[in-house]
Amino acid sequence: MVDAHLQRWIDALPNGPLYTPMAYLLGLPAKRVRPVLVLMGCELFGGKAEDVLDEAVGIELFHNFTLMHDDIMDASPLRRGQPTVHAKWDVNTAILSGDAMLVKAYQLMGANAQVLSIFNKHALEVCEGQQHDMDFERRSDVALDEYQRMIRLKTAVLLACSLRIGACKAGASLADQERIAAFGENLGLAFQLRDDLLDAFGDTGVTGKEQGGDLRNGKKTWLLIRGLELEGAKGGKILRAQLQRAVHDREPLLMVEALKVLGVDREAEAEVARLEDIAFAQLSAIDPSGTRTQDLRAVADALRMRVS
Amino acid sequence: MVDAHLQRWIDALPNGPLYTPMAYLLGLPAKRVRPVLVLMGCELFGGKAEDVLDEAVGIELFHNFTLMHDDIMDASPLRRGQPTVHAKWDVNTAILSGDAMLVKAYQLMGANAQVLSIFNKHALEVCEGQQHDMDFERRSDVALDEYQRMIRLKTAVLLACSLRIGACKAGASLADQERIAAFGENLGLAFQLRDDLLDAFGDTGVTGKEQGGDLRNGKKTWLLIRGLELEGAKGGKILRAQLQRAVHDREPLLMVEALKVLGVDREAEAEVARLEDIAFAQLSAIDPSGTRTQDLRAVADALRMRVS
Repeated sequence: MVDAHLQRWIDALPNGPLYTPMAYLLGLPAKRVRPVLVLMGCELFGGKAEDVLDEAVGIELFHNFTLMHDDIMDASPLRRGQPTVHAKWDVNTAILSGDAMLVKAYQLMGANAQVLSIFNKHALEVCEGQQHDMDFERRSDVALDEYQRMIRLKTAVLLACSLRIGACKAGASLADQERIAAFGENLGLAFQLRDDLLDAFGDTGVTGKEQGGDLRNGKKTWLLIRGLELEGAKGGKILRAQLQRAVHDREPLLMVEALKVLGVDREAEAEVARLEDIAFAQLSAIDPSGTRTQDLRAVADALRMRVS
Repeated sequence: MVDAHLQRWIDALPNGPLYTPMAYLLGLPAKRVRPVLVLMGCELFGGKAEDVLDEAVGIELFHNFTLMHDDIMDASPLRRGQPTVHAKWDVNTAILSGDAMLVKAYQLMGANAQVLSIFNKHALEVCEGQQHDMDFERRSDVALDEYQRMIRLKTAVLLACSLRIGACKAGASLADQERIAAFGENLGLAFQLRDDLLDAFGDTGVTGKEQGGDLRNGKKTWLLIRGLELEGAKGGKILRAQLQRAVHDREPLLMVEALKVLGVDREAEAEVARLEDIAFAQLSAIDPSGTRTQDLRAVADALRMRVS
């Protein structure tokens, strides 16, 4: 349903260099998690999915606008295995086509004043999250709570926003809107941390990526930040010494082993469980019997079970 | 009134690297033409200026968002005599702070659905205008009507949008909204062409710029495009030969002289007069006695009389 509506939207785009990159990026295979959450948030509170299709596509446009601009800022050559817009065209095209994509997202979000207000708030938070992410690249002293806040803003709030917009359009109470948003936010945080755990401790044969690739690249994740904290407190220096080497001289498996010895894997798993407990407690508050939230729980479980 | 409201808005911004560049760019001295037009469009139809201050600031934010991103795309080091945001900070900061500025503009424009819809339409046109402008940089065969369309989208529609939003909030009829928008659009086109005329034929002592600076840089203006057209038709080659030289070897006064011989200056002046006639005919249709449009005519006259 989301794909069909999105495709109709893409097909209706004018030709020309402003719109072709939008159609390209939106056309790459994607899970469409956010628009699906808009629909599910709506249906959970008795609304009809077809009444929030515009908002669902609007959220996906906004998400892709952030990808287009983030890829410039991160100088990423690839997105979903294909050239990024700035690599395929050029930086100016990616800036301007992204800008126009944000305007197009607003065209779809503006029909309802409450929806617009929710969207505005979270859109700004996503920008703030990206700003923190860029700042952290230049800092070596990022604390765990700063990191968590950055992930919340950059990633988790858009999941919260998607669910809440669906709920809002279905006429959910303010309290229920806040519950479903908290569900989305904590699920998003848990998801990100699972992703980091997979990178460090997952099975290369299943993930298809180098084990510890993020560690090799010195990417500041929950695991690395916590590992450096614990190592500093205990007087160790394996992680720190590895990070001082050039990237290709680092030994990611040694770093993985150091994290295990420090107990970071168990701490992270406990944190994932804690975040998921908070998330699911919201669903129980909305729907004590669990019947109306079956589909949402299934989606959440699918995200939890994913191994790559 | 605009400056005071804008200053309050700037003062209320959070600290941090996302917002400091916004405050910087908005703080540079500027004429605030667009927000003033919002207020005047509102008052013309019996509305109160204080009821459109948010929209006025929203338009100025949008305008500054386009400046921040256009300056990256054009690699401009200076804006209003001061370093551009990407020069003072970096490109990533200018991309992201600009994005956040567009979101902030929408926060101010979203209170009224009709206003939002007008704003959305014109915001997209401004992006399209900038896209045409960039495309034209790479082309040598831009026709006069293509150029005029680009200027209309990139510059003139935002003046139309400002007036129309003010009129809309004051409850003007759709016909009057379209008239005041057409006034703004044609005034904008005339203003741009006057600007080009000043560059080529203005008095350096008054403008403070090199006479024919745009011509030396090969900037595609109405004058140069029309000059090349006429020269081609008549078999001349002064302009073409100058453009084939390196920039520092060009002789702008020779190019100015060639334009005069071709009669481009008189054609351009006639075109300015034609556009202004269209603009002022709209005002007369709205206000046959001319009493309610006195202030707007005074602003338009001030723009016409400006010599630098």
